[in-house]
Amino acid sequence: MSTSRGARQPTIKEVARLAGVSPMTASRTLAGGRNVRPDLQERVLAAVRELGYYRNENARSLRPGQPSGLIGIAITNLANPYYGNFALGVEEVAAEHGRRIILGNTGEDDARERQLVSDFIGRQVDGLILVPVSGDAAHLKPERLGEVPLVLASRRVPGLDVDTVLLDDVGGAYRGTVSLLDAGHTRIGFLGNRSSVFTGERRFRGYEQAMTERGVPVDPAIVARDQQDVAAASLAAKAMLDRDEPPTAIFSANNRNTIGALREIGRRIREGRSGPRPAIVSFDDFELSELMPVPVTVIDHDARLLGREAATLLFSRLDEDVAVPARTVELPVSIEYP
Amino acid sequence: MSTSRGARQPTIKEVARLAGVSPMTASRTLAGGRNVRPDLQERVLAAVRELGYYRNENARSLRPGQPSGLIGIAITNLANPYYGNFALGVEEVAAEHGRRIILGNTGEDDARERQLVSDFIGRQVDGLILVPVSGDAAHLKPERLGEVPLVLASRRVPGLDVDTVLLDDVGGAYRGTVSLLDAGHTRIGFLGNRSSVFTGERRFRGYEQAMTERGVPVDPAIVARDQQDVAAASLAAKAMLDRDEPPTAIFSANNRNTIGALREIGRRIREGRSGPRPAIVSFDDFELSELMPVPVTVIDHDARLLGREAATLLFSRLDEDVAVPARTVELPVSIEYP
Repeated sequence: MSTSRGARQPTIKEVARLAGVSPMTASRTLAGGRNVRPDLQERVLAAVRELGYYRNENARSLRPGQPSGLIGIAITNLANPYYGNFALGVEEVAAEHGRRIILGNTGEDDARERQLVSDFIGRQVDGLILVPVSGDAAHLKPERLGEVPLVLASRRVPGLDVDTVLLDDVGGAYRGTVSLLDAGHTRIGFLGNRSSVFTGERRFRGYEQAMTERGVPVDPAIVARDQQDVAAASLAAKAMLDRDEPPTAIFSANNRNTIGALREIGRRIREGRSGPRPAIVSFDDFELSELMPVPVTVIDHDARLLGREAATLLFSRLDEDVAVPARTVELPVSIEYP
Repeated sequence: MSTSRGARQPTIKEVARLAGVSPMTASRTLAGGRNVRPDLQERVLAAVRELGYYRNENARSLRPGQPSGLIGIAITNLANPYYGNFALGVEEVAAEHGRRIILGNTGEDDARERQLVSDFIGRQVDGLILVPVSGDAAHLKPERLGEVPLVLASRRVPGLDVDTVLLDDVGGAYRGTVSLLDAGHTRIGFLGNRSSVFTGERRFRGYEQAMTERGVPVDPAIVARDQQDVAAASLAAKAMLDRDEPPTAIFSANNRNTIGALREIGRRIREGRSGPRPAIVSFDDFELSELMPVPVTVIDHDARLLGREAATLLFSRLDEDVAVPARTVELPVSIEYP
């Protein structure tokens, strides 16, 4: 087997010669195909197949000063379709720049995040994109990262002045809550994740702001802010709806809480129980929201675009003078009424 | 800045000394924490933070015969929540073995798959896990992969005898279709992805088998097998339901087709149109299936488990004598009636 490990590998020049293209074109094709015509890419890949050529990325990265060609991403919950789309957006932009992504799931666990970041840095990633778990900045300081550029997505970390992509959490939550108040609701519950989570805090603030402006008190009895998954959200919705004075509407701060609330509402309907059928405002879209048994207003945004923006910030940082100050991009959200 | 690039890095021994553990324990913690008590891991990570230590994975991988510690995964559609969960399952098992995953999205594109595989091999991954796009085996032959172990997930590639994790596609589709026939349906449509896709072919076969056994003809007019996304599936469902003899039930071969069909059915209901309200059998679960306006039977399976099984096969291959013949694991599915 002439192409097994350790045997001599054909060179990029041999690949280019067989494909009838320049070595630069062959090289660009293998780096992701940016600025290379599809027919030329196809010829290069045919030559690669013919010759059994593989670029040795690790050897390349070991030359001093050479990048590894890897971008590390740590996200909090890959089981949430939102983050699948986010990772896809990063992967697309990374591929356009000839990079690959190393992906890790933190599960909202501080220690796991520290371990992943340390591991990624040890692998000499070109850059890091992180949906941070907590407000602890110590392990994310530039000097702790060996000056590898870091972009935060969705959430900020206090005391860390780095490129960040956020959503308009406060404005979106405010407008969503106002839409419920405009519809005449005054007893509006809140479901969200831990307040230590940056987006949880911001979305609660938007809800609170709208309520306060209209002179409607926020009743702590129908505010539940500690649900990280669908099962916990269902239980929180159940407790709220079982009260003597249940909410007539619920603001849900993310799609895990929305799915949980709707699951509980659906259960009550199937069991033929009377009682509240609360209207829902959901931060985060979800599939088939239009088919729900109660009206669902969606505060929508594009997770894939968020991933693309995060990667774009990272690559502009890699290509630029590092002296540019940290930037924050806040992406707009749109409200979709039922 | 003592920890910036190029400056001397503290050694693993210094980390171990500060943490009060053996260098082996420190090393194991940084490799993923397998077999290390949580309190010791916490001490090691504290020492790592204190000293600013980072393991240099690339340098490690360059020693001849040393693995890179990376597992390459290429999946077909990261925007499908099914694959987010699949990747999560692989990532969990990889982390238990001190490995990280490099993730690429092929978008069902042959050329992109070849490019990703070539790139992963160039990066000297320890192993590859692939949801293959097509039936082309040439670029996946062991000698083309430099003998790097490959595990296929969800789909097989003809002519390629490697470790494979599949679902019981035929049996699941058969049982799902039988449940529609048992309910009295005789006009049952089929929505699926391209027949060149292995699962599409297997799931069609299960449907066809059930129909044929009961003497119910398969009508090509209500069989649509070319939808790769939700928008295309909606259009296919619309065309089927607009026919003079629309189906009274639809077998949908994956969750993208199910969502598309339900979106079209919901649109008709909201527009107050009369006409068919087909029952649905869906291969692949989706969130809130219990709240749909038509009865949905789900052929359910665990994408995360599929990922875990694929990774488990890969690591057993890495730890074992490579002479073990290729294995196929077929995971069962369960049927959830509405």
